[in-house]
Amino acid sequence: MTFSPIGVIHTPHKEVAGTPIQPVFSQGAKGTVEVFAEYRNGLQDLEGFSHIILMYYFHASEGYSLLCRPFLDTRQRGVFATRAPKRPNPIGLSIVELVGIAEGVLTVSSADMLDGTPLLDIKPYIEPFDVRQETKAGWYDQAQNNTQTLADDRFVHNKNRRIT
Amino acid sequence: MTFSPIGVIHTPHKEVAGTPIQPVFSQGAKGTVEVFAEYRNGLQDLEGFSHIILMYYFHASEGYSLLCRPFLDTRQRGVFATRAPKRPNPIGLSIVELVGIAEGVLTVSSADMLDGTPLLDIKPYIEPFDVRQETKAGWYDQAQNNTQTLADDRFVHNKNRRIT
Repeated sequence: MTFSPIGVIHTPHKEVAGTPIQPVFSQGAKGTVEVFAEYRNGLQDLEGFSHIILMYYFHASEGYSLLCRPFLDTRQRGVFATRAPKRPNPIGLSIVELVGIAEGVLTVSSADMLDGTPLLDIKPYIEPFDVRQETKAGWYDQAQNNTQTLADDRFVHNKNRRIT
Repeated sequence: MTFSPIGVIHTPHKEVAGTPIQPVFSQGAKGTVEVFAEYRNGLQDLEGFSHIILMYYFHASEGYSLLCRPFLDTRQRGVFATRAPKRPNPIGLSIVELVGIAEGVLTVSSADMLDGTPLLDIKPYIEPFDVRQETKAGWYDQAQNNTQTLADDRFVHNKNRRIT
């Protein structure tokens, strides 16, 4: 099956090293999503949504490994249990805040993609469809208990940090 | 860019008519996700996750429209402001509960895809990455105030229903 980009994502992240692994680690990084002219009519009504789902092609990712070590962990995991870019079908997924739309260009915050990333799709984020709570997150939950600092991101992720 | 299926999704939904539009409208519909043998090593560690994101190809969807009327609404909207399958790149996204894995076959609940849907990717659902709250959902929020019953789904969606 063949897909074609419907646009391109521009971000401050010019190199893989230092690019945040998720939007939650990229607070404040403004990005723009340029939708090609032929698809712009499809953007109608999007402005009413505060958050959108971007689907894109991991264009800087070559090949894949069925096992990989997540940034957030110390050992190898099955790729489908991670959000790593080197996957059999290298499709990325990010939930970003939509700041505004003008002439087919979306301004978004928390952009965690590389500059120049080809855009595949935009979907509205709808809480009743997309929020699940009290979930279990396997190795990730475990890693949160072990690791507090991420060298690659220079961010502390403190989901499970306890005050007491 | 070219993608190849990594598996196939089996569900009770044999026809487009009556197929739920989202997992939240498909509570209890068991499905199985068969991952092809060559990719099964990538499933390691997935079992620790209670919820997963399935990305798949809307194989029964031909062509696309930049404007469409969502099932949940009474007027046309830009396709990127909807979750409709007829999109320029017909990639579907569903969050489902992972019930179990055995020999490369995942059992999931709340399956909202058509039977035979080609699987593109599996990602773990991780609350800190995937949950956004107090979001605005444009036409959807509006439609919830207007509509309580969905003929196509025979489900009542009651996000905004008030007890009082």
